Amino acid sequence: MPKRGAYDRASVHAILDEGLICHVGFVHAGSPVVIPTGYGRDGDVLYLHGSVASRMLRTLAEGVEMSVTVTLLDGLVLARSAFNHSMNYRSVVVFGRAWPVDDPEAKLGALYCLSEHLVPGRWDAVRPPTERELKGTSVLALPLDEASAKIRSGPPEDDDEDYALPHWAGVLPFTLHVGPALADPLLAPGIAVPEHVSDYRRPRGSSTPAAGT
Amino acid sequence: MPKRGAYDRASVHAILDEGLICHVGFVHAGSPVVIPTGYGRDGDVLYLHGSVASRMLRTLAEGVEMSVTVTLLDGLVLARSAFNHSMNYRSVVVFGRAWPVDDPEAKLGALYCLSEHLVPGRWDAVRPPTERELKGTSVLALPLDEASAKIRSGPPEDDDEDYALPHWAGVLPFTLHVGPALADPLLAPGIAVPEHVSDYRRPRGSSTPAAGT
Repeated sequence: MPKRGAYDRASVHAILDEGLICHVGFVHAGSPVVIPTGYGRDGDVLYLHGSVASRMLRTLAEGVEMSVTVTLLDGLVLARSAFNHSMNYRSVVVFGRAWPVDDPEAKLGALYCLSEHLVPGRWDAVRPPTERELKGTSVLALPLDEASAKIRSGPPEDDDEDYALPHWAGVLPFTLHVGPALADPLLAPGIAVPEHVSDYRRPRGSSTPAAGT
Repeated sequence: MPKRGAYDRASVHAILDEGLICHVGFVHAGSPVVIPTGYGRDGDVLYLHGSVASRMLRTLAEGVEMSVTVTLLDGLVLARSAFNHSMNYRSVVVFGRAWPVDDPEAKLGALYCLSEHLVPGRWDAVRPPTERELKGTSVLALPLDEASAKIRSGPPEDDDEDYALPHWAGVLPFTLHVGPALADPLLAPGIAVPEHVSDYRRPRGSSTPAAGT
């Protein structure tokens, strides 16, 4: 498959930066568990967070093997045969073991990273965490040493003899639509929508590998 | 958290029917593996498929424990404090053991189900699988006996004393945008876009639990 495969670090970073949630996999009592959650990236480290009471965070903090998958679905690939249907996507899989980020300053930095990943500009516009809130939050760092990307893009690839069939073929492209912001019904009067909300958009990566790499 | 929790079978079905991809978790050589893939639902059975050469399909066909997670991200929940930020989402987690669907007629039915899940109306508009293609495809069935849904919806829930802060709060809603279909550059002239493509949309579930349940 010419358009699938593992790509370079820049592609891994771009996919992680565009994604909003990851699916974290780990083994708990012998069973595979997969949990969706937010994340942030700082260089070659991925940050996860959650309540100190979270089973996932407590399990992962022990340094067990884990995987993190981020998947961006770019479209459905409609071929002339049922068999050659496919999806256009960009995904990253990270394997590794996480370590807890316990130092208060490092923890605050990681939470800033997580927040900026989801909504750039938000952190400085809201009340920062209290000491109690920080203590109630677990933060984990996962190195991106074992990270790989898979990308499928472009039109369908049909069998040679199928191109003569009278069936329409092509791609149904998907993008994330960000609707107008919905104000909290309890919002006090006179508070305008800030620019980091009204101008919100995701970084949009290319569905082809980063150039020159 | 009043708006999160496990819901009934109708909510599980609605989330599965709206989703396009799932993340399949399993343990391979002691390590957790998470792989994104398409799926289909028929009643209380989930179908997965892939190449007979696929490591995932071969592992799962042995009847090992697996999990399937489908996550719909409905929006970002922007609170007045960094700590109370959240996401609106609907997710389903299924645990269980799959069995291979080997009977040719049952396999064809499962592939029809997978196809109709992604693009209703597509199956009858394209070339059906050959015997060779069917033999090269593995299909697995996973019962929905152990399936549960989690839903978070609505505005942020701030600490009482934070409602007086002058920070904007609310929700940034996300939806899936289906762009205009892109014809295969190799499409023969004179083939119009069929209605199952031009009118494509996902079923849109409610982000609140199904009524009366």
